Amino acid sequence: MTDQLIPPSHRDLLAPPAPVTFATLGPTGYPQLTAIWAVLEADLIITSLAGIRQKLKNLTGHPKATVFAVDPANPFRTLEVRGDVTIAPDPGLETLQKVLAAYGTDLASFQAPLEGRVAVTLQPTRVVALG
Amino acid sequence: MTDQLIPPSHRDLLAPPAPVTFATLGPTGYPQLTAIWAVLEADLIITSLAGIRQKLKNLTGHPKATVFAVDPANPFRTLEVRGDVTIAPDPGLETLQKVLAAYGTDLASFQAPLEGRVAVTLQPTRVVALG
Repeated sequence: MTDQLIPPSHRDLLAPPAPVTFATLGPTGYPQLTAIWAVLEADLIITSLAGIRQKLKNLTGHPKATVFAVDPANPFRTLEVRGDVTIAPDPGLETLQKVLAAYGTDLASFQAPLEGRVAVTLQPTRVVALG
Repeated sequence: MTDQLIPPSHRDLLAPPAPVTFATLGPTGYPQLTAIWAVLEADLIITSLAGIRQKLKNLTGHPKATVFAVDPANPFRTLEVRGDVTIAPDPGLETLQKVLAAYGTDLASFQAPLEGRVAVTLQPTRVVALG
């Protein structure tokens, strides 16, 4: 199935506790992939990134990214969501706390940098759900 | 650890049976991600792609790709290998058969297209092993 909307059949792949793979385009032209925590709200994929991260620099220069998730029980069932990214300040860390809560943790337990945290929202432009 | 060589500590993440995530750059600027089967030979990552695949078209225009793998038992242990891609004909399907054999199957059981099969080799330029 290929559609702009994330189908009900594959929305579970974007649910905690498993992280998802997040791809940006690096400055030298290579895709850069990392595992991130994200939450799905309607068809928006929302995450929190630290200001020092290269992937955030990548997004500032090239705000197109892709989220990819694989069913751990069936590697042929996958969800790819390509989309346009918007970046917003998160001075009160509300977005970070929302993401952490979805993964069963909180600021007190969180060990990654808090400085320059931003909210990153991916608006899908293309969805490929397989398997 | 960050190095050009794929470290012994993370080479298991590129071993069957789990597929790996393969990222190319699509024509409209979005990273395109799929799950693929691949084999590791020294520090080269080798796979077989069908001629009709969009990701092969992407690589022809932009021969920079990234392989990403996550430890199913520990999502914080990840391996990212960015590299330059070379594409070679595989008329005898030797590369395809090598990949299939690594995953415990063979041509007789393989259901994907055979037409225009090519051997795709990724030469790492940057390796990020975490966890």
